[in-house]
Amino acid sequence: MLDPHLMRVALGERPADLAIVNGKIVNVYTREIYPGGVAVAGERIAAVGDVAYAIGERTTVIDAGGRCLVPGFVDAHTHPEDTHLSPARYAEAVLVRGTTSVMTDYHEIGVVGGPTAIEAALDEAAQTPLKVYFVVPSHIPFNPEVETSGGVMDSSHVETALRRPDAVGLSEVIGKLVVEQYPDLLRSIAATHCARRTLHGHGPPDMRGPRLNAYVSAGIASEHQTLTADSAVERLRAGLNVMMREGTLAKNLGPCSKAATEYGLATRNLSVVTDDLDVVDLVTVGHMDHVVLRALEEGLDFLTAIQMVTLNAVASYRLDLEIGGLAPGRYADINLTTDGSDFRVEATVARGRVVAWNGRLVAPLPLPRHPESFLRTLRLPRPLCADDMALPVPGAARRVRVRAVKVLEHIRLTSAVEADLPVEGGRIQADTARDILPVCVIERHGVTGGVGRGFVTGYGLRGGAIASTIAHDNHNIVVIGTAYADMAAAANHLARLQGGLCIVRDGRVIGDLALPILGLLTDEDAHTVAATEQRLNELAHALGCPLRRPFMLMSFLTLAGIPEWAITDKGLVSVEGARVVDAVVSVD
Amino acid sequence: MLDPHLMRVALGERPADLAIVNGKIVNVYTREIYPGGVAVAGERIAAVGDVAYAIGERTTVIDAGGRCLVPGFVDAHTHPEDTHLSPARYAEAVLVRGTTSVMTDYHEIGVVGGPTAIEAALDEAAQTPLKVYFVVPSHIPFNPEVETSGGVMDSSHVETALRRPDAVGLSEVIGKLVVEQYPDLLRSIAATHCARRTLHGHGPPDMRGPRLNAYVSAGIASEHQTLTADSAVERLRAGLNVMMREGTLAKNLGPCSKAATEYGLATRNLSVVTDDLDVVDLVTVGHMDHVVLRALEEGLDFLTAIQMVTLNAVASYRLDLEIGGLAPGRYADINLTTDGSDFRVEATVARGRVVAWNGRLVAPLPLPRHPESFLRTLRLPRPLCADDMALPVPGAARRVRVRAVKVLEHIRLTSAVEADLPVEGGRIQADTARDILPVCVIERHGVTGGVGRGFVTGYGLRGGAIASTIAHDNHNIVVIGTAYADMAAAANHLARLQGGLCIVRDGRVIGDLALPILGLLTDEDAHTVAATEQRLNELAHALGCPLRRPFMLMSFLTLAGIPEWAITDKGLVSVEGARVVDAVVSVD
Repeated sequence: MLDPHLMRVALGERPADLAIVNGKIVNVYTREIYPGGVAVAGERIAAVGDVAYAIGERTTVIDAGGRCLVPGFVDAHTHPEDTHLSPARYAEAVLVRGTTSVMTDYHEIGVVGGPTAIEAALDEAAQTPLKVYFVVPSHIPFNPEVETSGGVMDSSHVETALRRPDAVGLSEVIGKLVVEQYPDLLRSIAATHCARRTLHGHGPPDMRGPRLNAYVSAGIASEHQTLTADSAVERLRAGLNVMMREGTLAKNLGPCSKAATEYGLATRNLSVVTDDLDVVDLVTVGHMDHVVLRALEEGLDFLTAIQMVTLNAVASYRLDLEIGGLAPGRYADINLTTDGSDFRVEATVARGRVVAWNGRLVAPLPLPRHPESFLRTLRLPRPLCADDMALPVPGAARRVRVRAVKVLEHIRLTSAVEADLPVEGGRIQADTARDILPVCVIERHGVTGGVGRGFVTGYGLRGGAIASTIAHDNHNIVVIGTAYADMAAAANHLARLQGGLCIVRDGRVIGDLALPILGLLTDEDAHTVAATEQRLNELAHALGCPLRRPFMLMSFLTLAGIPEWAITDKGLVSVEGARVVDAVVSVD
Repeated sequence: MLDPHLMRVALGERPADLAIVNGKIVNVYTREIYPGGVAVAGERIAAVGDVAYAIGERTTVIDAGGRCLVPGFVDAHTHPEDTHLSPARYAEAVLVRGTTSVMTDYHEIGVVGGPTAIEAALDEAAQTPLKVYFVVPSHIPFNPEVETSGGVMDSSHVETALRRPDAVGLSEVIGKLVVEQYPDLLRSIAATHCARRTLHGHGPPDMRGPRLNAYVSAGIASEHQTLTADSAVERLRAGLNVMMREGTLAKNLGPCSKAATEYGLATRNLSVVTDDLDVVDLVTVGHMDHVVLRALEEGLDFLTAIQMVTLNAVASYRLDLEIGGLAPGRYADINLTTDGSDFRVEATVARGRVVAWNGRLVAPLPLPRHPESFLRTLRLPRPLCADDMALPVPGAARRVRVRAVKVLEHIRLTSAVEADLPVEGGRIQADTARDILPVCVIERHGVTGGVGRGFVTGYGLRGGAIASTIAHDNHNIVVIGTAYADMAAAANHLARLQGGLCIVRDGRVIGDLALPILGLLTDEDAHTVAATEQRLNELAHALGCPLRRPFMLMSFLTLAGIPEWAITDKGLVSVEGARVVDAVVSVD
């Protein structure tokens, strides 16, 4: 902050590096829109308003042509790994949409590579014009008793991570664990208070009344799992920053924003985040620019919509002197936009440099050389075969009754159904007619090599298998299929790719996406990845899958942290009991 | 924050210690007023709204009788030493007015006793129900080149002080020194950023345009020297928290609040502070309760007026999860008040205990035993005599032309006039007809024992002398009089009292107030002190002084930090040049 160049430019003693003139300042502090410009020194804003005094011969001057000058957008809770883009490619994809800062825990990267991998990813991100603020994961994996991850984080790692200057808080502070006073989490919370960072919650949507009070009393600053207007009202009244999700799966902005538009509550603690946004939506629909449009559709005024993706979000991280507004000393993150009647981002300045015009990057970002630890992270002891995929049954069994996990579109909660399945050749057979399919999770970090097996309903595949190495909260290989041989082939293909997504039919790979970075990410550009994923989704649909995002939903099937059921490398997991239960209920 | 009792009460597993029911919640987060109560566990709030579930047999229940439940008030920039009350007595006086937190640098205490005395004062304050947050002084004294103080603070002390858990920021960050990049201040600013605390500014009122931009670019969070609506608009647009002063001397709320009421700017960064409030005003007019009334008079709505003395103020210190609102986990600081139409505080809860009803303390606070270093701080080498008070002149001089500092009511700036004075018996004589009086500042910390001498106009005394040990930014003895013998008598009397205020006429002390704690404070209660000060003011008025607050204004006459002139123990000081100049312009 103590930048002599910045101060001299602000004083008018030295020309600005960049000046945007003839714009309309969208002031999120005062809720005004008025004519003016912005003068930039290095990465920071030196002056806002009448900036003629700061312009010299060496100043690059941009005529905004009357466009609005809006603070760079902030996605205050997101998991960039959901896009499958490496940090540089992710930065490219969101910068062209006007997003200049994101807050993330890089939790998925930590699941595979632990704190070291997270630090390496943060370092890669720091080389881009996008600012990635680190919200330290509160623990990895979610439930070590019933799943195997590559990386591990507990309170001792949290304490270390909080020392990073880019660390701004503790992420995904689980409501249930707070209320039950889980000792390791309490240690992380204490360390966070001590480091003067803030707590960012992951309270269940149905947390209300006394449990919500108990949760908030721990000092939680924000929450991003609010589904209804009533719940938003309750949480805002409790002083929480309500981060309304508007991503690929969760669409909470509509109901939650009624707290403002219908109930008339003040909006200072209302913000919008994506949480989960896949690359298809990012490329075809947009990022926070789309969120602004959605907020306008919901009846919020232009200034409020802008505040909800800038100042309101950053205040809960205590970053309001750094980002989220146009004022001297803040990062020069500025969007040139049309106004609220026909909103779009036409140019983006990040860290004081023009990075995008009309949805195109000024120049692609350099791709860093990744650390060795990012690569070759899939470690299977041997190729898998069909028998590895099948749940063993007694030799004489002819039918079994199984418990199948039921997935639901648009909501990440699972339930279960029971169904009878035939046994042939010693293997339980899929029932495609009633949509009861086998699912396997194969430990891939080289820890146990174990395979967890169970059943799923909701995927509707009538043939083949789909597989992925994106599987919360362990990122093992998850595969669903109609035939064990196809399932094994799909898993083996992903092992060869060192991670990714694929679809196999009749023993043949009919579509894939390689994600060789930690088994999670690629250095391909966003448009290429989006096209491939679009095609993979279509292939799954062609196989009968009715789900809009089969792979994304599959990644939550393995999450032993959201009720009621999950499949992990240990088998079928009852989330409530945090224990492995038999997927076979009875044998006939 | 990790308080198992609090969590159990919030969950309804254990009864609350205190519950206020049948109230109207004034919610500063959502800007709503709705029926409800507050349940308290220990010092914190466990639940807000419907709190019936938290009430058990052992719960003390207060029926609010439909009164408003308002967060405890916060004075976000104040110098408690201006009341001359010791920390416990100050806490009593402001708690009965509904103030439950103050932010202060205890700068005056530091001027006499340095960082050790500040820490001792903070420790005394911490034993009261009032929360005193420490904003670390950026340096003491203001200008060591031209004044002598007892204590000293520079960036090395700042670094140490910032480690205190109650340290929330850096105080009085001087605009001129920031813009000129004064090296020691830059070190303190860097240390503050590093400790994740915020910078609280003291920019001159006329700082605007480029200089304001430069100042804000250093990361300044708040400012408390804004005098006009235009200036308030400019500072709010620059993202500053504008702390409008409404104290004994500065009355900025009226003009500055027009930024909201006339210009229509958002109020989230508008707050009100007292800065300087003397005990007479505190006792007779009030503290933040009076500020709320004033805000209502200026046309601000009730919710905004309350926000301006609660949430808005604390956010810039990053204390919004601790104080400033009624929500679980926050300190149980609650006022029971009437509504905006006839506003008054009827009861106050601080740290979970009822401390005041109807303007009376429930019980006086215990007075701590002060550390030895608080006492006997006046160290004069010998009693003073009339000759010590008089500026030497050549033996043959008959008349001298002097430069006299001109004090102004309500504004702490000084100017100067020139005047001719007769010399009799080798001494320059006061000219009471034209109100040109001698003034002396006597070094009293036992450092030099020096006496600075000059002249003043504006005090209008027609006889006697007035003296004080409250003298910014050095707290030496300052004395103004019509006769040197009375001046010496007044100074000697204060030395005997070990500090205080007094008035001498014809060699006799006609009124005094002993301030034996650091020469600044007393353990007498607020009403007694106010009555004494009132009487001293009246005595000064009877001697001809036209100033409403002669002693308070005299304390700024010695401040070598505000233009244009000051008197210190070194003599007449030109503030702009930061140098001592001759008070005698010519000798005849």
